[in-house]
Amino acid sequence: MDNEANNLIKEKDLVMLYLDERRQFLVQAISGLRVSTDHGDLNLSQIIGQPFGFIGKTHLGRDFFCLKPSTADLMMKVKRTTTIVYPKDLGYLLLETSVGPGSRVIELGTGSGALTMVLAKLVSPTGTVYSYDRRDDFIENAKRNLIHVGYANNVEFTCADVAREGFSQTGVDAVFIDVPEPWDIVPKAYEALKGGHHLVSWSPNVEQVKRTIDALEAQNFKCIRTKEIIEREILVRLQGVRPRERGITHTAYLTRAQKILVAQQQE
Amino acid sequence: MDNEANNLIKEKDLVMLYLDERRQFLVQAISGLRVSTDHGDLNLSQIIGQPFGFIGKTHLGRDFFCLKPSTADLMMKVKRTTTIVYPKDLGYLLLETSVGPGSRVIELGTGSGALTMVLAKLVSPTGTVYSYDRRDDFIENAKRNLIHVGYANNVEFTCADVAREGFSQTGVDAVFIDVPEPWDIVPKAYEALKGGHHLVSWSPNVEQVKRTIDALEAQNFKCIRTKEIIEREILVRLQGVRPRERGITHTAYLTRAQKILVAQQQE
Amino acid sequence: MDNEANNLIKEKDLVMLYLDERRQFLVQAISGLRVSTDHGDLNLSQIIGQPFGFIGKTHLGRDFFCLKPSTADLMMKVKRTTTIVYPKDLGYLLLETSVGPGSRVIELGTGSGALTMVLAKLVSPTGTVYSYDRRDDFIENAKRNLIHVGYANNVEFTCADVAREGFSQTGVDAVFIDVPEPWDIVPKAYEALKGGHHLVSWSPNVEQVKRTIDALEAQNFKCIRTKEIIEREILVRLQGVRPRERGITHTAYLTRAQKILVAQQQE
Amino acid sequence: MDNEANNLIKEKDLVMLYLDERRQFLVQAISGLRVSTDHGDLNLSQIIGQPFGFIGKTHLGRDFFCLKPSTADLMMKVKRTTTIVYPKDLGYLLLETSVGPGSRVIELGTGSGALTMVLAKLVSPTGTVYSYDRRDDFIENAKRNLIHVGYANNVEFTCADVAREGFSQTGVDAVFIDVPEPWDIVPKAYEALKGGHHLVSWSPNVEQVKRTIDALEAQNFKCIRTKEIIEREILVRLQGVRPRERGITHTAYLTRAQKILVAQQQE
Repeated sequence: MDNEANNLIKEKDLVMLYLDERRQFLVQAISGLRVSTDHGDLNLSQIIGQPFGFIGKTHLGRDFFCLKPSTADLMMKVKRTTTIVYPKDLGYLLLETSVGPGSRVIELGTGSGALTMVLAKLVSPTGTVYSYDRRDDFIENAKRNLIHVGYANNVEFTCADVAREGFSQTGVDAVFIDVPEPWDIVPKAYEALKGGHHLVSWSPNVEQVKRTIDALEAQNFKCIRTKEIIEREILVRLQGVRPRERGITHTAYLTRAQKILVAQQQE
Repeated sequence: MDNEANNLIKEKDLVMLYLDERRQFLVQAISGLRVSTDHGDLNLSQIIGQPFGFIGKTHLGRDFFCLKPSTADLMMKVKRTTTIVYPKDLGYLLLETSVGPGSRVIELGTGSGALTMVLAKLVSPTGTVYSYDRRDDFIENAKRNLIHVGYANNVEFTCADVAREGFSQTGVDAVFIDVPEPWDIVPKAYEALKGGHHLVSWSPNVEQVKRTIDALEAQNFKCIRTKEIIEREILVRLQGVRPRERGITHTAYLTRAQKILVAQQQE
Repeated sequence: MDNEANNLIKEKDLVMLYLDERRQFLVQAISGLRVSTDHGDLNLSQIIGQPFGFIGKTHLGRDFFCLKPSTADLMMKVKRTTTIVYPKDLGYLLLETSVGPGSRVIELGTGSGALTMVLAKLVSPTGTVYSYDRRDDFIENAKRNLIHVGYANNVEFTCADVAREGFSQTGVDAVFIDVPEPWDIVPKAYEALKGGHHLVSWSPNVEQVKRTIDALEAQNFKCIRTKEIIEREILVRLQGVRPRERGITHTAYLTRAQKILVAQQQE
Repeated sequence: MDNEANNLIKEKDLVMLYLDERRQFLVQAISGLRVSTDHGDLNLSQIIGQPFGFIGKTHLGRDFFCLKPSTADLMMKVKRTTTIVYPKDLGYLLLETSVGPGSRVIELGTGSGALTMVLAKLVSPTGTVYSYDRRDDFIENAKRNLIHVGYANNVEFTCADVAREGFSQTGVDAVFIDVPEPWDIVPKAYEALKGGHHLVSWSPNVEQVKRTIDALEAQNFKCIRTKEIIEREILVRLQGVRPRERGITHTAYLTRAQKILVAQQQE
């Protein structure tokens, strides 16, 4: 396991502890910390200095796996104050923008910080996420979540009523909108965004989508498209392959648009 | 438009020229280059020095928009030698790994380079994509595509028969497999991958999924899950909102798994 | 094949002639009639007196199968003047009513008669379908279609503007509404329908559904539910099992409701 | 309400009593019977002699509606011994056959009798359903269910191991197969079925579908097609329209095929 030298679990590293499909815990590896489960306690001292992929044992002798958290794990395991955007939806939306390392991105609202941490990771180490929310308590919780996953340095939080006050930035590479009334934000997003760049927004209801699109069209956004992403889990088992029988059937409608400039005609 | 000073289209920049939903062209902005369409020629000299979001005119007077290409645009507009992975699928798969700026990632096969460029963008500026294919001509085409979008520096191409020869790297952060017989690659991927990290693979047929999962289980991969991502476009029009009536109904089944270490028991 | 004695193709019987998935013809077996295809002519004289399931030959020696038409075949092979309701939708809707042999059912609009013939078949031999349309030419075409499939005796056609004139019947067991503005018909349907019985309606757009449901609620309909039925074809082939890659992704939203009586409180 | 004279609830009639979406009871109207709910008792004496669509009251003053049961209600409200076929699937399958009033149809297995009662209703008054099951107790339960809904006269039950013994009928119009190993039944179904007519079968797993189709092809069935029917409920509420957020995501794959004759070549 020499080639695992760069892959050792260090103090404070994030680790997904996996006992089985129903028992998965995203933890920081801290010496002396114990995680209690109905299959026994997991003493985190035993995993520090071991490589990711290590198999630990609970005090009742049950195996658990020390896994590298995926980006989706980070999102799904945050301490939630609100409903979050799902990986199936966010994965699609990210690719509908030009966001990458170094980008400057606005997010509204902060919510639980699930999206914030994914954006912070993708724009790191030199980019910045400007995360807005009306509620101080949401921002405080999200900050703690960001520190937990190690991307707090790439985020600037602002507590503001954006519909009235607008954003403080201009020339950002993308705006992500996750609020109940996106149409109120569209004019502010237009001001903040670089020409030709992307606004994305998602909402559970058809009426929200319509009203948002009306606002986008009024504001000189073009290339407006709305999609729905449906995820089906496929169970591959000895007794046969079939889709899972019950599950999530709707999360949100996803809308994307690009800002067109208006003042240039006189040039 | 002062705040557009950092957003001007420069010589060789990639631009999406958008006339309407059916007429979208991903081009490099090169002085003197003309793009011919059935609505007139687009002279690219007119857009250089203008900001993204600018509205140009064909020689027949038709407006076109100068848009910033999204990551999905890069993928979908490559010169194709093979079928490509779709953004709806890739977005989901990316978040199922830990890949981000600085990651070292293996991809097999190179194909048209659509996935290669997305990975190269996401791991830039310091990470590396190791892209393998059996066919030299595919690699040559993909190289040209990568140079076109500006991420060639982050990619190392290798022409090899991986099922026999394996990968040259060890300790990589993720392995992406897009070949007709993924099960042949699973043991080689295990060797190349860091413990606890992610392998993802996608295939159109159920039988391929089953055989791949058998190989993953035999090779000590855990946390194996298969999903299908279905995208529906929603048409939001004056006469009403409804899903599009015809479209793509299947692309691929997506499988993800994580490597567990075996040698540690003796320690 | 003695037990096929009751299964012989007689003069004027409807037969599905099947060469392959792309070449299927619903015909009346008439001596001397020839059906021309790019794989040769089919002389219908050769199939009369043969049992269903018989394999005929075109004059170029190509096999074709003589199949019993399914109810869906009748619907899908009518001469169309309009878009038709799909079997996946109609199958669900039929079971959401109490319609069966002997029922009295209203349908609006007649359209191509695809729904008319299914209803006529299901209520035969003693029931009646009252089929309304504003357009005489649609009714004439539908009549010919009904005669062709042999269920014309169970249908009474009326050319009328139902939104103004209402239906002539009362106490019917179900009302099927397939018009662009179902809300205009809801009060007329309430008058025609038995208490506690079913109205079903289908529309492609969300706005139509909303307005119809508003009208249903205003009219004392209860138990209102809207569904969407999505059909996916699964290709089972030697090279593997997978869903078909392109196809129909939307037809209509399906709404059902039941009439509640209002006057009874005083009794 | 004169026109409701033919629509009065009589002793022993089936009625759907509807308090709200979660409280719906399919009952026989029997004088003196009381249905207990957490919103009070429903005394059925009060509804006899009233028309369908009547609004009754529980002893706690809560309204309930007296609705005509739909065919789907009959299916979904049977006393279940087994999983049942869903209306969305059965509706599609029924239209893929030629079954209607007067048809002779085989069903295997009887299960809870949900399918039996729908078939019995559709072939009544002159047709017959031959319903087979290996288990006497299932047949006994199904018989009671059929008597309850009033279609017992159109059904003949047989307790048999069909894979070994075959069916007793020949020349039937359709065979419906709902057993875990449909491939064992295919040769027996071929013998029982009229030439050119329809066999339908449904199974939850891909492997079952493949093996069934292999058996169908070996047995000279043609026109073999497999589909999956996905139902999405759309919630239309004041606060907005959206699909329901959780629900059933898979029931069964549906296969249909038609019998081709083999002996005729010599004629």
